[in-house]
Amino acid sequence: MNLPVERITADSYRQVKARLRELIARLGAEGTLRLPAEERLAASLGVSRATVRSALQSLQKEGRIRRLHGAGTFINRHVLGVTANLAEAGAFVDLLADAGYEAGQRVSGRATELSEDVATALELPAGEPAWEVERVFTADGRPAVYSVDHVPARLLRYPSSTPEAMDSTFSFIETHVGRPVCYSVAQVRPLLPPPHVRAALEIEADHPLLFLRHLHVHADESPLAVTVAYVNDDYLSFSVIRGYLDQ
Amino acid sequence: MNLPVERITADSYRQVKARLRELIARLGAEGTLRLPAEERLAASLGVSRATVRSALQSLQKEGRIRRLHGAGTFINRHVLGVTANLAEAGAFVDLLADAGYEAGQRVSGRATELSEDVATALELPAGEPAWEVERVFTADGRPAVYSVDHVPARLLRYPSSTPEAMDSTFSFIETHVGRPVCYSVAQVRPLLPPPHVRAALEIEADHPLLFLRHLHVHADESPLAVTVAYVNDDYLSFSVIRGYLDQ
Repeated sequence: MNLPVERITADSYRQVKARLRELIARLGAEGTLRLPAEERLAASLGVSRATVRSALQSLQKEGRIRRLHGAGTFINRHVLGVTANLAEAGAFVDLLADAGYEAGQRVSGRATELSEDVATALELPAGEPAWEVERVFTADGRPAVYSVDHVPARLLRYPSSTPEAMDSTFSFIETHVGRPVCYSVAQVRPLLPPPHVRAALEIEADHPLLFLRHLHVHADESPLAVTVAYVNDDYLSFSVIRGYLDQ
Repeated sequence: MNLPVERITADSYRQVKARLRELIARLGAEGTLRLPAEERLAASLGVSRATVRSALQSLQKEGRIRRLHGAGTFINRHVLGVTANLAEAGAFVDLLADAGYEAGQRVSGRATELSEDVATALELPAGEPAWEVERVFTADGRPAVYSVDHVPARLLRYPSSTPEAMDSTFSFIETHVGRPVCYSVAQVRPLLPPPHVRAALEIEADHPLLFLRHLHVHADESPLAVTVAYVNDDYLSFSVIRGYLDQ
């Protein structure tokens, strides 16, 4: 991608976050648990202090670091080994690659209508025209995660044309709806596979899966889309950091 | 409890957080999504600005609010309805009460030895003497969550006496180990119940459960205890907030 400078804010922010992640992994491996001050990080990454602060806040939210008032920023050592953090952003294909697999995905899209429960979450009437993107994520060629994105047709920028199936749910929404996802609320449930998921993931009927039902929300609080995902945790095992004391 | 003022820092911080949570619920119900400034919150709650800031940071980590640089602090509207947030602190008995049940627990303790996987997580040799606290949490009298805390005996302040079974894992660790939990890393897995859990939760063999394996960590990064929990999500359904863009 070759975007003009003014448009790459979100991308450069993600890059800063990725580089901070690398720094955390490297320092952690060396046994150093304290991060340099914001000012030094900004200088060494060549970005503003505000960008560094945002990236640090985001890593703190994910439980990667903690910031102690007056004492500095510290790496949460026991989080270093966590590859799939439920609180973190991330396409399944990237999470599978992070977990060490040759990761791939098969994508297909179709016009459909919103089911009642998806419509309720999106605050729209059931039966509304919608676009569905089905994804099967593979780990070393074997199916590991099955997901379906549900996007109301009325939110698509060009409702009459067939949207291109994109690399990820987030790039699909950002490109075809034109409004990026700010946060997602995901219900987390243990489920046995319904028949179509069992077929897609090539598993037995008694194989429990982690079911995630995301509502993706824009910065103005309007719901953009719903993604349901079924994860075979033989391939991808999630963790979450539960914080108790903040000081 | 009647603790001297100097010792209730963590409690008053929790109280401030609880009052901010109430304020968020009330404002959200009224349709107001912007929180008052830190200074005004501190004045109206009668605490320092630093305490308010810590509590806000913690609520931000849990995904309840977002803080936009220069614009203020905003309630994440679609998180208002979430009762059990995986990133939040909380004893299961409180989460079940929040979900509207008459919540209770049956607690029993016993001396035992660390199994290999628990010992590995605690960075100790397998077979070490340990204390186990088994808990069955009930919702309207029916078993809903089964958990076991594993605490190495060498960490107990009075290893030779029988520790009192406490209200919660966190108060047990704080009282009998003498060092509070700073954060916990929880593995999240879908599982079918092993026989003893099936019996404790009175469920069928094909009833999938949410399995949470927590490593509780002190502020100095030393592991304190492991808690494994099996949740029947007919009673308690968790959500998690996945953040994408921070600005």
